[in-house]
Amino acid sequence: MTNTQLTLVQIDNYGPWTVTPEPRREMDLQTLQSRLFADLAQFVGSRDGYVFFTRFDNMVAVTNGLDRDDHELLQESIANRYPVTLSLGIGVDRNPAVALERATDVVQRAGSAQDHERREVLSGETLPMEDRADSDVQIAHFDVNDATGKYTDRLNEFDTFIQIEQGYASLMRHLREEHGALSFFVGGDNIISITPDLTASQYRAAIDHVEGEAGVELKVGVGTASNAHEAGFAAKHALEDCRHRGTIVEFADAPLAADD
Amino acid sequence: MTNTQLTLVQIDNYGPWTVTPEPRREMDLQTLQSRLFADLAQFVGSRDGYVFFTRFDNMVAVTNGLDRDDHELLQESIANRYPVTLSLGIGVDRNPAVALERATDVVQRAGSAQDHERREVLSGETLPMEDRADSDVQIAHFDVNDATGKYTDRLNEFDTFIQIEQGYASLMRHLREEHGALSFFVGGDNIISITPDLTASQYRAAIDHVEGEAGVELKVGVGTASNAHEAGFAAKHALEDCRHRGTIVEFADAPLAADD
Amino acid sequence: MTNTQLTLVQIDNYGPWTVTPEPRREMDLQTLQSRLFADLAQFVGSRDGYVFFTRFDNMVAVTNGLDRDDHELLQESIANRYPVTLSLGIGVDRNPAVALERATDVVQRAGSAQDHERREVLSGETLPMEDRADSDVQIAHFDVNDATGKYTDRLNEFDTFIQIEQGYASLMRHLREEHGALSFFVGGDNIISITPDLTASQYRAAIDHVEGEAGVELKVGVGTASNAHEAGFAAKHALEDCRHRGTIVEFADAPLAADD
Amino acid sequence: MTNTQLTLVQIDNYGPWTVTPEPRREMDLQTLQSRLFADLAQFVGSRDGYVFFTRFDNMVAVTNGLDRDDHELLQESIANRYPVTLSLGIGVDRNPAVALERATDVVQRAGSAQDHERREVLSGETLPMEDRADSDVQIAHFDVNDATGKYTDRLNEFDTFIQIEQGYASLMRHLREEHGALSFFVGGDNIISITPDLTASQYRAAIDHVEGEAGVELKVGVGTASNAHEAGFAAKHALEDCRHRGTIVEFADAPLAADD
Repeated sequence: MTNTQLTLVQIDNYGPWTVTPEPRREMDLQTLQSRLFADLAQFVGSRDGYVFFTRFDNMVAVTNGLDRDDHELLQESIANRYPVTLSLGIGVDRNPAVALERATDVVQRAGSAQDHERREVLSGETLPMEDRADSDVQIAHFDVNDATGKYTDRLNEFDTFIQIEQGYASLMRHLREEHGALSFFVGGDNIISITPDLTASQYRAAIDHVEGEAGVELKVGVGTASNAHEAGFAAKHALEDCRHRGTIVEFADAPLAADD
Repeated sequence: MTNTQLTLVQIDNYGPWTVTPEPRREMDLQTLQSRLFADLAQFVGSRDGYVFFTRFDNMVAVTNGLDRDDHELLQESIANRYPVTLSLGIGVDRNPAVALERATDVVQRAGSAQDHERREVLSGETLPMEDRADSDVQIAHFDVNDATGKYTDRLNEFDTFIQIEQGYASLMRHLREEHGALSFFVGGDNIISITPDLTASQYRAAIDHVEGEAGVELKVGVGTASNAHEAGFAAKHALEDCRHRGTIVEFADAPLAADD
Repeated sequence: MTNTQLTLVQIDNYGPWTVTPEPRREMDLQTLQSRLFADLAQFVGSRDGYVFFTRFDNMVAVTNGLDRDDHELLQESIANRYPVTLSLGIGVDRNPAVALERATDVVQRAGSAQDHERREVLSGETLPMEDRADSDVQIAHFDVNDATGKYTDRLNEFDTFIQIEQGYASLMRHLREEHGALSFFVGGDNIISITPDLTASQYRAAIDHVEGEAGVELKVGVGTASNAHEAGFAAKHALEDCRHRGTIVEFADAPLAADD
Repeated sequence: MTNTQLTLVQIDNYGPWTVTPEPRREMDLQTLQSRLFADLAQFVGSRDGYVFFTRFDNMVAVTNGLDRDDHELLQESIANRYPVTLSLGIGVDRNPAVALERATDVVQRAGSAQDHERREVLSGETLPMEDRADSDVQIAHFDVNDATGKYTDRLNEFDTFIQIEQGYASLMRHLREEHGALSFFVGGDNIISITPDLTASQYRAAIDHVEGEAGVELKVGVGTASNAHEAGFAAKHALEDCRHRGTIVEFADAPLAADD
């Protein structure tokens, strides 16, 4: 059974900071946001976790394998090198949406995102080492079938982008409402979801739903491990299997639950 | 009248590169993509343009003010510092969607995004200096009314994110289909659109449409100038006017077309 | 005749900032310093200037081609993205050491490097566009003969490093005292000097001096142009000529002054 | 007794790469070198090690606390994100210079730094966890007495820089020849040395030597711990003690060997 540890990363007082004393050059904000995310990706990624840029001022990380000291070090390092600080809330649950609920809650209880006195919250429970298992993290890596042939090489870039976005919006809502899974667009035509234990037929149903609602055809590779990196890497390899075998759902290992 | 110069930035052969000889660590790809975007934001931004991360392997830039030599230097600098190269297509038109059509077209005609022999295309027309005018670029900066109070401080981050995404998906489709305007989520609760000359009532109609379709309330500041930075900066200030006056549409200067 | 425009880049109040309220992690300081330098290298370099990391809290840039607005934008962009700010002093003179004297002086007169109230000085004269000429900047690019064979592949890295440092220390003093030229180690076995108009025999004398004092054998390529990038690029090509022809002094073009 | 684990970090085939097919823009090389160093500083620093930029194509790291898997991950991550690759040699010894000898040797035996076929060497022994002790790493953090008052606020920046360099060159040679200690300039007026167990009188002798040879007055804080970060942090605090007490040598704890 999955047991997801999620961390909400929230920049303290960011909205006000971006316009005080005057609005700042937009491209400088874009640069700061992207490089902050990149640093998080390196810190968390090198500890076998995943981070998603989400809204940039609020980011979601899968942190199975990172303890409280790791979170504290991350906070300190960012405070030493950026003109902003981070609040971090950690939550654990068998269901990703509930885990994120917990992570968000501990930050919200400490104060508003725009409370100028709330700085560097570090709160919540991490999954103890002795409770970790190879089934803790399930990751599904989706991509669009023949995106290059159907879209990138044929439409103008914005119309391709609209297609990908519609597919993403549909998948993100369906997986969240049906299963409490959290889905993130990661570039190109790729979406990565953090899921509870889902079966092959549940993935097929999600794919059918997106095709029906948005007209976008997806395929998916699924992996499970004690941490996001290994689960995600297995999912990428499973996605390559889809490519080679012409299938639309592949698991790196046999799925945990029965499928039809 | 607007006269938008857009550049499509496409990483050459990226899909194959990410899985050759084996899939690469996802967090390293996220880091590379974000830092590449950040470098483009600095290069283009310091020349008063704008860049949007879009799909990261394909990015859209508003490049009024950048000439062919600037594009060539950008390409060379990226090739010197990254393990990938860029193809750049430039297009100019009074309508942003048509300009992007042109920019995408010159890259597509040179070869597929996954053609391993196609590298560093640099093609298309820039807007000559003598033809530039203060009305060339119109930028609309949208944000969500009281996002912090309604969403960030109340819902878990993913449900807040879903709300913002639905609002974005609705706005991007409406503005593209109605006006050929191109809209980009830029973090937080902010969306920046590159538009042709639109009136206050056309913006109000867009805002009403999004509220009806997605239940998300937007407000907008609009600016016009010869380049993206100045137009966008004026738009940000106009958005602050919305905040102070409690209005939902503000223009930095009087709108060019009649409104009601 | 050379006419060098130099900019002193000084981080405001850096010493106190690094230990307030407590000393900061050394590797975070190294990261901040290096990335700040890298951003300066991109900003100045894309405008055909050169920057040298020097002491990191104080850096020297050759800014022929950058005007006051460019300097102001650089200052603003750094202030938007880093937890520190920069003071910039600009000086112009036919002799590089005198130009730097001027650049340093305008910053010093505004206040101490550790005066916590002195922030973002921007002062000094730039070389007007109409006064620029192809002879303004002379750059000499030195490297150590067969560094890889003699040192890198034979000694432990620190002993190789000591050799390179002794050669650098000797060259930097000699060229400064004899000619007012400013020399900077730029990595590997490379030293770049900003010089007034020097002749081939003056370069040979410098090379002989370093061999005698430090036992390190150098060769040099020299280039001249209206800006650092073009002068330096020509110098690099001239250095390649040394490699191919087995010579120790090569000019990209005929030297301006007589040689023997 | 100290037991230093050092890693030599060498960019593969860098010299040839920088000029193939043509020389590359110098500021792009500076950017790549600095950002590569910054990434190493973050990776190693967040694992409580230290990295020194040294010659940028060859860097020295104190890696007590990093095992072979850490080194492998670092190599992989750099290869995923840069146009160059790294060879890593690891060495352990009670004397830092000997440890570096070992680290350099395993890389040299695999092939020349400019052997285009030698890529990504990973070789050498790490200090086993069970053999680690709180006395493994001794770090001395030197700075120049009143550098701001004597130099930065009075001389032009290059003449200040020459002073600092002469002091560094003198200290680096003395400590290497007398004790096998390795010293690195880290910016500002700061030098960090990795030493074997040295006494207060040995540090005083080094300071006297530098004053006599170069006319530069240093003070030093010394710390010892099982890893570079903790030893260095203790050294920084000891240096603050020098500042407050007006002394020139301070140890974070009582020195291990007798002093006079």
